[in-house]
Amino acid sequence: MVEKRKPMPVAEAVQAVMNVGGNEAKKETIPLANSYRRILAEDLVADHDVPSFDRSPYDGFAIRAADSAGANRNRPIYFRVAGEIGAGEVFPREVQEGEAVRIMTGAQIPDGCDAVVMLELIDENSEEIIAIKRAFSPGDNISFQGEDTEKGARLVPKGTSIDPGVIALLATFGYAEVPVAIRPRVGIIATGSELLEVHEPLEPGKIRNSNAYMMAAQVERAGGEPVLLGKLPDDLDACIEAVSRALQDVDMLITTGGASVGDYDYVPDIIEHLGGHPLFNKVAMRPGSVTTVADIDKKLFFGLSGNPSACFVGFELFVRPVLRRSLFSEKPHLKRTKATLGKDYPKPNPFTRFVRATLEEDDGRFVAKPGGLDKSGSVTSIAGADVLIALPGGSRGYEAGMDVDIFLLEDHKGSEWPWDSSVASYKS
Amino acid sequence: MVEKRKPMPVAEAVQAVMNVGGNEAKKETIPLANSYRRILAEDLVADHDVPSFDRSPYDGFAIRAADSAGANRNRPIYFRVAGEIGAGEVFPREVQEGEAVRIMTGAQIPDGCDAVVMLELIDENSEEIIAIKRAFSPGDNISFQGEDTEKGARLVPKGTSIDPGVIALLATFGYAEVPVAIRPRVGIIATGSELLEVHEPLEPGKIRNSNAYMMAAQVERAGGEPVLLGKLPDDLDACIEAVSRALQDVDMLITTGGASVGDYDYVPDIIEHLGGHPLFNKVAMRPGSVTTVADIDKKLFFGLSGNPSACFVGFELFVRPVLRRSLFSEKPHLKRTKATLGKDYPKPNPFTRFVRATLEEDDGRFVAKPGGLDKSGSVTSIAGADVLIALPGGSRGYEAGMDVDIFLLEDHKGSEWPWDSSVASYKS
Repeated sequence: MVEKRKPMPVAEAVQAVMNVGGNEAKKETIPLANSYRRILAEDLVADHDVPSFDRSPYDGFAIRAADSAGANRNRPIYFRVAGEIGAGEVFPREVQEGEAVRIMTGAQIPDGCDAVVMLELIDENSEEIIAIKRAFSPGDNISFQGEDTEKGARLVPKGTSIDPGVIALLATFGYAEVPVAIRPRVGIIATGSELLEVHEPLEPGKIRNSNAYMMAAQVERAGGEPVLLGKLPDDLDACIEAVSRALQDVDMLITTGGASVGDYDYVPDIIEHLGGHPLFNKVAMRPGSVTTVADIDKKLFFGLSGNPSACFVGFELFVRPVLRRSLFSEKPHLKRTKATLGKDYPKPNPFTRFVRATLEEDDGRFVAKPGGLDKSGSVTSIAGADVLIALPGGSRGYEAGMDVDIFLLEDHKGSEWPWDSSVASYKS
Repeated sequence: MVEKRKPMPVAEAVQAVMNVGGNEAKKETIPLANSYRRILAEDLVADHDVPSFDRSPYDGFAIRAADSAGANRNRPIYFRVAGEIGAGEVFPREVQEGEAVRIMTGAQIPDGCDAVVMLELIDENSEEIIAIKRAFSPGDNISFQGEDTEKGARLVPKGTSIDPGVIALLATFGYAEVPVAIRPRVGIIATGSELLEVHEPLEPGKIRNSNAYMMAAQVERAGGEPVLLGKLPDDLDACIEAVSRALQDVDMLITTGGASVGDYDYVPDIIEHLGGHPLFNKVAMRPGSVTTVADIDKKLFFGLSGNPSACFVGFELFVRPVLRRSLFSEKPHLKRTKATLGKDYPKPNPFTRFVRATLEEDDGRFVAKPGGLDKSGSVTSIAGADVLIALPGGSRGYEAGMDVDIFLLEDHKGSEWPWDSSVASYKS
């Protein structure tokens, strides 16, 4: 009656999912103004020096430094004002000995000049003559061509999430249109006859479908396009038909619920009928041990638990890296780092536990504070979660104050393969 | 010739901006599926217990615990299987002595039962009879009504950025439509005759307009709606007319560039002609000391520097909190925390310095590593910046390894008033 499932270690399960091919990254071109939080599909390379010419970082006077030699408080040196240039202008001739050019911030240094005297240092001047009371060296107060970035520099690698600073660079280098990754379409199907639609009133024994909307937001956060496909029908043949149709339309498909060890679980049958290859059907983790992933004709089918926390964790560990990889990311996994555990977990667990937590700071250290009820059915513990704390399975519990590994949920940078080294039991 | 400006301390300048009224938060209602990263306009209160009924967290058999008293390996107790219930179903009658009900994960505990025996613990059973080899206590393996959340609990305060977990709660509590803050419209105007459009080829002495697009993304990140209004004309009267028209159409207006101490700066004249009240025109900070903010008929006018880094910092310190406040946020400012400085800053500076940096982790501690060239004209240092390091002005420099305050740029939670206490010189 009970189908025995052998749990697979987390790292091995993630690797199995990543080993499935398909889902190649594809690019499209969109206007710069729409590119915030999209993912770069090509390396951003500087096609010119920045600055592209020697320029003045201040308002002041451009001079030939040599002409100021010997100037001091008691012996000012006087310069003739030969003209002025605003930002965007170019002085029309070479500056001569004893001449100064009034220059605005950002304007190009006139030929012949090699220093800028800040306006504040000029204490005596007229329209035609200024006095300078100290000597300047060549290069003083000049932003040199290429000092910020040299032509040819690879500034931002493809696969990077476009933030305001990346947009500034794209604009600087003339990307009115930006090559970005096409958002993978991720189908989401809820299963379970206990599910009500969000707008329906509560009924005895039933709950509202929260996982589908939650995962749609997780898909958006990861950079994909969620496709909400409603609920599965109660009949197996209709389920197979619905999943088959969905797989045509999306790049990967997630179901939530119905994947428990219950009699009513159609997931294995659906996978079998569609000729799919199950990668695993149980993972050595809590929550989310009952997670099935299959390769159906090179498309990934994720059968996540119906429990909100389990579903949440399953998405972040298994779906996210596949999704990010098809966004050109070379760091598709959640970023791992360390923190101090903010609460005791005295009860040992044979499986690796992933605890939803908020990240706080105590005197420069990360402290991860578990939020709400730590049960797989808990929905409140997910709101506002910044991180997942990873507590490796074993025969001992954990105490507040211990160092633990955490995975950042809101990070945009990711990591390459976070399952190495320090989390020993993942490899068991 | 030089208009002397008295620099205002940063905290005082931020306070002056926040003191200007106007920009009341307003709400609208949108479909749940579109609500990711919008801002809640009402507190989210649980309108029912979660779970809303006692339910089974496992597949198994629901029993009356008392009936299992005395069971052990050698002396199993047998139960009659009275039926089965799947998730969403309700058992139609009270369970009697010696009866067990097959129950699926998530299903409601039948009347009369007070414990669930996990399926794995049943080693002998048929369709009609099961054997139990240990005693159970009332409450074993039951998720009790309200154990996750009790009806009436204030789960998420208004002003919160909607993340996947908040969406799960909204769905659970039936918010098919979600009350969110209307995105404030933030007008962005670039000024400066040196500016080329992004699609234009480079010309001598000119640069492409990167600040407007960068700030549009900063507005989006903060939760506002950017309105790109192009460039200001070169003629003062036309500028006044353009700014006046823009102010009708937006909730706040930013100009970038043209606000340097140069002869060509129209900003003071524009403010004066429109009857505005300048709050300050210089701030004791680098970059961005030349920042003007004015109250024009209860709308905020931000004249930010044309230097990319200065413009970036000015936005985050002054524009962001106003914007977030009009999104119902009670924590409108960038979140402040502590980190270890990753690089020497030996040269003292009388002004508070804000350095763009990436946040890394070293053995559980935040380390803030400045990126690229630390000059206000630098555009490359902004890309990928996670934080601003705040180095208070004074007569001493800073060394790598020192504790410094940092402001998180990608955080969605914010802080109430981050300018207190530890950054002493802000109060000077």
